[in-house]
Amino acid sequence: MPRDIPAFSRPKRNRRVLLTTRPTGVPEPGHFTLDEGEIPSAGDGELLVRNIYLSVDPAQRGWAADVANYSEPVPLGGPMRALAVGIVIASRVEGYAAGDFVYGFFGWQDYAVVAPAAILHRCAQDIPLEAFGSLCGINGVTAWIALNQLGRPKAGDTLLVSTAAGSVGSFVGQIGRSLGCRTVGLTGSDAKVSQCLNTFGYDVAINYRTGDLQAEVSRAAPQGVNVYYDNTGGTILDTVLRQMAVGGRIVQCGTASVQTWVPQPTGPRNEREILTRRLVWSGFVIFDHMAAYADACEALAKLLTKGKLSYLTDMKAGIEAAPRAIADLYAGRNTGKSLIYIG
Amino acid sequence: MPRDIPAFSRPKRNRRVLLTTRPTGVPEPGHFTLDEGEIPSAGDGELLVRNIYLSVDPAQRGWAADVANYSEPVPLGGPMRALAVGIVIASRVEGYAAGDFVYGFFGWQDYAVVAPAAILHRCAQDIPLEAFGSLCGINGVTAWIALNQLGRPKAGDTLLVSTAAGSVGSFVGQIGRSLGCRTVGLTGSDAKVSQCLNTFGYDVAINYRTGDLQAEVSRAAPQGVNVYYDNTGGTILDTVLRQMAVGGRIVQCGTASVQTWVPQPTGPRNEREILTRRLVWSGFVIFDHMAAYADACEALAKLLTKGKLSYLTDMKAGIEAAPRAIADLYAGRNTGKSLIYIG
Repeated sequence: MPRDIPAFSRPKRNRRVLLTTRPTGVPEPGHFTLDEGEIPSAGDGELLVRNIYLSVDPAQRGWAADVANYSEPVPLGGPMRALAVGIVIASRVEGYAAGDFVYGFFGWQDYAVVAPAAILHRCAQDIPLEAFGSLCGINGVTAWIALNQLGRPKAGDTLLVSTAAGSVGSFVGQIGRSLGCRTVGLTGSDAKVSQCLNTFGYDVAINYRTGDLQAEVSRAAPQGVNVYYDNTGGTILDTVLRQMAVGGRIVQCGTASVQTWVPQPTGPRNEREILTRRLVWSGFVIFDHMAAYADACEALAKLLTKGKLSYLTDMKAGIEAAPRAIADLYAGRNTGKSLIYIG
Repeated sequence: MPRDIPAFSRPKRNRRVLLTTRPTGVPEPGHFTLDEGEIPSAGDGELLVRNIYLSVDPAQRGWAADVANYSEPVPLGGPMRALAVGIVIASRVEGYAAGDFVYGFFGWQDYAVVAPAAILHRCAQDIPLEAFGSLCGINGVTAWIALNQLGRPKAGDTLLVSTAAGSVGSFVGQIGRSLGCRTVGLTGSDAKVSQCLNTFGYDVAINYRTGDLQAEVSRAAPQGVNVYYDNTGGTILDTVLRQMAVGGRIVQCGTASVQTWVPQPTGPRNEREILTRRLVWSGFVIFDHMAAYADACEALAKLLTKGKLSYLTDMKAGIEAAPRAIADLYAGRNTGKSLIYIG
């Protein structure tokens, strides 16, 4: 697979972003320490990967927290768990060779020695390299699988998406539109409202920070919401849940609007809404669905190359940008998928 | 279908239990007025049904309330909406004849003139007549369809049921047991704990009013709860939801523990639990599933006649018992399915 890759200068040392104190909420720069050491080498059954694009993802908040979650907490003093797009430098694994591009759990560091289990995807589709960190990264693939498998949208359905311009939501809206849904996006600024309408093709976009969200959702979805793809939780969820159509599906893909779960936050009870509206409310974690990953990438790459889909990347450069990147994400300061180029 | 029916004296007048004031919570005797009038007659396309067993159901709280629900509120001054088992006295509908036993929405009254749409089931199975108001009434059929379609229990799963000795829960537990589940029942008294263990075959039964519910559920379901069949909502739901196994299913079939929804009650936020445990939380209302009714009755009748299942009936007599019956139900004063014999 010949590919134009950036002409990067290969670092001679391995810089790493270590998690050195445990955050209770969103990780801030003070929770990390930048460190530099020798380039490690691959043992038997391992690969040496050099990272090119580091990924910044909302899920990292959970990975850094010392609270039961769907994955073990990042050990204190270790490199921050992160996805990245990289190139294999040395392989002691059959089926992988130097020069292969890969996407996986390589951490916030220049070099990673990993077992093949850390690789989520072999970057084989003919799309831009950084797209393996967004469209064909967990963001786009989450959108594809969760929307199709749990949201089960039908043509003519009203699909409402929170963080509609975000790294997952922007794909959800566009996939829904390609399936014939009426798409309604919720987002946090007027600039993102424009992005939703102009870049991501939403039929309606609503700034949830201004105006009366309940009235605006009701106007946008007069027959009720058939599929709510929720990345925020919190009061936005409370409002939308009460405007679901009978038989509606809620996909819980994130809880970005809730800053901390300790102490346990409260909200209106939902069991009666679930019952009387006959909702199906499901949680989605991409790592349960790895068997469907490659097919989802194929489908997404096709949508891109057919011009049915756009993506936005918020690219920074230099590993020094990493420690503040999660906080920026939760503050809504990014535009599109947040990546850090360290080539 | 020859059948031994009770030797009832046919009333000469039609007594009716009218809803005369609108309850905000559980309907109490004061919300009803007993009235007596002429026996109505069936017009074209109608049947005259004489009720034999009046049904008392938790759903009647919702039917009586003036709040958006899955059905229209009972009109003030009209007979209380209710299910009943009755016998056709006169038919002006093809396919029905005098002497047919039927189960449907015939109201709390001696006689009802109804269209065929009011009939949920023609009582054809060879089981006791009153069982069409419980096992093959909406209670048993709800348990069968909701557990199988939404709960999707597998052999070896831990199935937890709230109101485990109740008119729906008792069937859920027994059906789950017949499918090879480990069954755990939550109930509100030590007497009902015994019933759960001795009559309904639960592996474990817990009195949720005494002791530490969280610790007891944890002991009963050390690997987590795979299927939670919830008839209560409220704090019991809060506790169990946090002990669901990854991939668990919650069937929301009732919210009996929440006395009123005005003002909106609050509780701990659940979106993070749904997400991280990848739960599927679904609402079930039997009236969406009428196409599956007859098959469910066949299956339930078979379980009964094969000795795989018991049912308890809390039988009262006389239409005067109706006005206080819903309140008794919500106070947990009934044992098994509440029916009122008015033959």
